[in-house]
Amino acid sequence: MLYLINPTQSKLTAALQRPVMEVQGLEKSVKIVLNDIKQKGDVALRDYTEKFDFATITNFRVTEKEFAEAEKLVPESLKIAILAAKSNIAAFHKVQLPKEVLVETAPGVTCRQKAVGINSVGFYVPGGTAPLFSSVLMMAVPAKIAGCKSMILCTPPQANGSVNPVILYTAKACGVKRVYKAGGAQAIAAMAYGTESIPKVSKIFGPGNQYVTMAKQLVSSTNTAIDMPAGPSELIVVADAQSNPAFVASDLLSQAEHGTDSQVILLTTSVEMAKLVKLEIEKQTELLSRKETILKSLESARLIVLPSEQAVVETMNNYAPEHLILATQNAKELAEIVENAGSVFIGNYTPESAGDYASGTNHTLPTNGAAMAYSGLNIDSFMKKITFQEITAQGLQQIGLTIEQMAAAELLDAHKNAVTLRLKALASS
Amino acid sequence: MLYLINPTQSKLTAALQRPVMEVQGLEKSVKIVLNDIKQKGDVALRDYTEKFDFATITNFRVTEKEFAEAEKLVPESLKIAILAAKSNIAAFHKVQLPKEVLVETAPGVTCRQKAVGINSVGFYVPGGTAPLFSSVLMMAVPAKIAGCKSMILCTPPQANGSVNPVILYTAKACGVKRVYKAGGAQAIAAMAYGTESIPKVSKIFGPGNQYVTMAKQLVSSTNTAIDMPAGPSELIVVADAQSNPAFVASDLLSQAEHGTDSQVILLTTSVEMAKLVKLEIEKQTELLSRKETILKSLESARLIVLPSEQAVVETMNNYAPEHLILATQNAKELAEIVENAGSVFIGNYTPESAGDYASGTNHTLPTNGAAMAYSGLNIDSFMKKITFQEITAQGLQQIGLTIEQMAAAELLDAHKNAVTLRLKALASS
Repeated sequence: MLYLINPTQSKLTAALQRPVMEVQGLEKSVKIVLNDIKQKGDVALRDYTEKFDFATITNFRVTEKEFAEAEKLVPESLKIAILAAKSNIAAFHKVQLPKEVLVETAPGVTCRQKAVGINSVGFYVPGGTAPLFSSVLMMAVPAKIAGCKSMILCTPPQANGSVNPVILYTAKACGVKRVYKAGGAQAIAAMAYGTESIPKVSKIFGPGNQYVTMAKQLVSSTNTAIDMPAGPSELIVVADAQSNPAFVASDLLSQAEHGTDSQVILLTTSVEMAKLVKLEIEKQTELLSRKETILKSLESARLIVLPSEQAVVETMNNYAPEHLILATQNAKELAEIVENAGSVFIGNYTPESAGDYASGTNHTLPTNGAAMAYSGLNIDSFMKKITFQEITAQGLQQIGLTIEQMAAAELLDAHKNAVTLRLKALASS
Repeated sequence: MLYLINPTQSKLTAALQRPVMEVQGLEKSVKIVLNDIKQKGDVALRDYTEKFDFATITNFRVTEKEFAEAEKLVPESLKIAILAAKSNIAAFHKVQLPKEVLVETAPGVTCRQKAVGINSVGFYVPGGTAPLFSSVLMMAVPAKIAGCKSMILCTPPQANGSVNPVILYTAKACGVKRVYKAGGAQAIAAMAYGTESIPKVSKIFGPGNQYVTMAKQLVSSTNTAIDMPAGPSELIVVADAQSNPAFVASDLLSQAEHGTDSQVILLTTSVEMAKLVKLEIEKQTELLSRKETILKSLESARLIVLPSEQAVVETMNNYAPEHLILATQNAKELAEIVENAGSVFIGNYTPESAGDYASGTNHTLPTNGAAMAYSGLNIDSFMKKITFQEITAQGLQQIGLTIEQMAAAELLDAHKNAVTLRLKALASS
């Protein structure tokens, strides 16, 4: 933990510098995988699944029988929790559905904007020991509400060829009927290009390791949309002298356990609070099962004391954190001046894990400073907005000259002519 | 022009295949430019401007005096046209401003979504003989409405160091005070990384040649957002036996004049109409100033007669055109079943050029099939949506168990603990 009291601007900037990842070698090896899948389809997919997941897969698609068996394996209490979270996520994403926009911009000129669900979407869910079934909720629930007609999901099989039952249960509960046993860059390639077994989709969503992230980035430069760029997870907690140091420490630790590259930052104007949080972190860490990951992650944690609330606000907005917890007495007022953040947690009883699972907000959020320009997943992510215009004869007479003037000035003669010959026809009719 | 009557599905698919661009060499040379600007800033920018624009620039920023001189050079009639278009564009984008979303997903659990203007945005406007000042309107008008605090614009200087006066006039009219004389990949790099003269921005918008497009794509994989991927411009016109062949031809030609790589497609169920449109195209082309470009572009144009309206609808939705003109008698009904398109033009008096300039819709639209998953520029493009959650003590007691159950199942112990210790504190208070 780096502990800074009233650092100079340059020291502060240096302390909040995000790590730059070296990706040259990664890009090369991922390109090979993408190319193989593009050219050889299922055959290559089968090879890579054997190589990376140690699983021999005949049929990539999860069967009805497998879904049914999975359902039996999930404890009732967990099912109830998943459905409760699903209901909250649905409630928050439903109210986001955009209204149709319609306006007559000039007499006889009607413009409309209509949101339409993206036809086919693909979700990626990483495998491993900790199955991220919560991500299934965060993708499939809004996709369904948005009206996406086709949803598929890829997740790597275990060595015995099975898929984690909680992932299957959650997928089914969300209406995702087509789940495929494929992981890594090869799964992303399969969804981007299509194979004999796995259909091509228009947009790919989901978290993953560096191979998955690179594969998503590479396919996004050709013809497949992706949810957003991905980087290590981040949290800033803003605390004052009245915050609860145990709560603050528990939030910082929940972020730190995500991975050794997680970014964990405390901003406060109180030296005393920073000290108390540090002690609490040390105390709580001892009791946590992911202690090793946490200790490594905490090496790059920052506890920063700043001279004023204004400095705190500037620092949080300049950093543009993925998660921002406001644990101060004036948390509500601070929330109003947040300019850049993925998701904001207000007050003492709003831990980050609430948003990760069950409050209703989406947990797929912009990291690595992307919150400057990107939103977290929301209903828009699953829709596109099409514009329509309808101009009457009178409408064209109204704006025709404007179009002609501008087209002529841009030296686009045929653009002008498309208006001119209509106006002439109207004049002579 | 390829003229197809009731083609087989495979012939149809082949005819509508988009050209694939070879970008390997391009990527390499653009990477060099990006790297130079990143490392040497203004010095490299000056060198490249000399090399590519043949202009020696001391101060990149356009001065007040230059703005004032530009204003004198723009004809009054064009100024009136620009302001009329600006007013329509503003009217349509203002009504798109998203409302704040707020919902109590569970008792004591309040979730909110708030759209905030992206702080700093950069616009690129190509130079050359035809100054695309209309693009300035399409970027700066919504950015201003969205509340973007900082807007800058880069456009290549002419060899004498000046910038096209109509671009300057339009920029000023839209409130863009900082215009820089820089073009090509080097301008994109300057806005992505910042130089001594040009500030770094969070999101870059605007059209450009293949170097600009590649530069935007490359910076988007690091830390700068971009408007959308770019490809050759496209138009599908859907016509029936009652359409006006002269109008239809004029629209196809207005698209064809954009560039030799423009994609121009007629879909109709009427052989007669296809023939009439072909004749009209030949007739009108002779009278247009960009005849050479048009003739080249028309080589890859397609006039396709299909056996049924259903086949027409399927084909247009599968192609996902940037622009879609519905010139049939039932245009309004067809508009309702459009699934994939950038912008749709309904009826005989709604030429594409209306949307390019003055109807109010945005003319920056997804090409190359991106309309499957992407929207054209709209107010969302200039904002990000931040979520907020506020949970009361009672709220956490309500959803706490759900979070604990899910965190435990994902083996995220510290996530669970952040809730557990709060619930314990509440129980003992």
